[in-house]
Amino acid sequence: MALKTGTMLKNRILFRQLFDNASFTYTYLLGDVNSKECIIIDPVLEQVKRDFKLVNELGLKLKFAMNTHMHADHITGSGYLKQLSGCKSVISKMSGAQADIYLEDEDIFSFGNYNLKALATPGHTNGCLSYYFEDQQMVFTGDTLLIRGCGRTDFQEGSPEVLYKSVHSKIFTLPLDTIVYPAHDYKGVMSSSVAEELKFNPRLTKSLKEFVDIMNNLNLDYPKQIDKAVPANRVCGLHDIPDDIDIKIK
Amino acid sequence: MALKTGTMLKNRILFRQLFDNASFTYTYLLGDVNSKECIIIDPVLEQVKRDFKLVNELGLKLKFAMNTHMHADHITGSGYLKQLSGCKSVISKMSGAQADIYLEDEDIFSFGNYNLKALATPGHTNGCLSYYFEDQQMVFTGDTLLIRGCGRTDFQEGSPEVLYKSVHSKIFTLPLDTIVYPAHDYKGVMSSSVAEELKFNPRLTKSLKEFVDIMNNLNLDYPKQIDKAVPANRVCGLHDIPDDIDIKIK
Repeated sequence: MALKTGTMLKNRILFRQLFDNASFTYTYLLGDVNSKECIIIDPVLEQVKRDFKLVNELGLKLKFAMNTHMHADHITGSGYLKQLSGCKSVISKMSGAQADIYLEDEDIFSFGNYNLKALATPGHTNGCLSYYFEDQQMVFTGDTLLIRGCGRTDFQEGSPEVLYKSVHSKIFTLPLDTIVYPAHDYKGVMSSSVAEELKFNPRLTKSLKEFVDIMNNLNLDYPKQIDKAVPANRVCGLHDIPDDIDIKIK
Repeated sequence: MALKTGTMLKNRILFRQLFDNASFTYTYLLGDVNSKECIIIDPVLEQVKRDFKLVNELGLKLKFAMNTHMHADHITGSGYLKQLSGCKSVISKMSGAQADIYLEDEDIFSFGNYNLKALATPGHTNGCLSYYFEDQQMVFTGDTLLIRGCGRTDFQEGSPEVLYKSVHSKIFTLPLDTIVYPAHDYKGVMSSSVAEELKFNPRLTKSLKEFVDIMNNLNLDYPKQIDKAVPANRVCGLHDIPDDIDIKIK
């Protein structure tokens, strides 16, 4: 069933950005063409069948279903991916969510011949991690740094001061060419770069004081999915999909 | 205003895929980091301000606003991009649409130090071109080849026989590693490869006869935007935005 061609994407990492149109979430598939090991970052429950089908078609073996943090706007696909593939779920130790593997700041994890580094970037939640892939000049920033924006700091353990410090100390210090891949975008833009956000991010180019003022006065609606998503995500990395959640994909 | 860093994306083409959530259209920005020349493929009128702002932020100069074909599901942004930037509009000679530059099969066009080749891939319309970027192992297939699908052949000059022949002779003969970037996807998938479509495309892996049967029995609704989009696109590459179209972006 899977692709047999050994020439496919030679000399390149197999990289796919995927989109969930309901929650505006980006999911990332990263595969090593040689060893066939792959990881998925920020899978969305309703898209697991699509994503796992792609993993199989590409002849890959899923090693980790990872989350950048405990999401409040969608239910993670990690639990369902575990059921389907036997992969391990991964999240920050600080997240408060259960998973097979817990990461801390500066932890290195690998798939095939590639290494990524976890960067603790709290502020949207206490457990927010960014995943830095130095070899490919990529950073997966979750909800910490968005394209010309950033994650909310008005629920869960949100703190604008902490988020500002995380971005300036951990992401804006990466090489300028590093491509920024966020967990969401609401305008159809799929990536940015450290250089661009350093110059054009309308919030994070401000002083800390101005930033805190902006974040404390956004007056956003209460997140629609939070009361369903957070309890599910707290256990979903470890356990089966809760029975009371209609995943509508079977 | 524009980014000054010369190190940004060095050794890499500047490449951005952008999405229009209303028509599910992908727009592509390709830039030469050294000369700063760039092109946009399949711009959408309602997203022109977003895209042109990005061109300016990245310090690029827009050379061509190109279309893969005369679209029926959205109004092209080429006319408005011409007004804003002074770029030239480009489309197939066979499209029936007006533009500054007309391309035919095998024509080479360039931005900065990079060349792309136009491949005549009719079938969805008579004027469908795919744009092959050999240096970067990319092909922009418009509505000719979609991810696990293909464009409709039941309106404009659609012909399933012609589309099948185009894909098999012009796209499936490219190197297997070539990344396929279509004009649309409706499931949140952003790219594919020639190898994948050769193996997994549910329509184009069939025989010609089976393919024609499939395409002639899709029973799809009449395209919602066609009566507005096609007349506008017929002139929009050359002239100003028609006054009667509310572009809602000024």
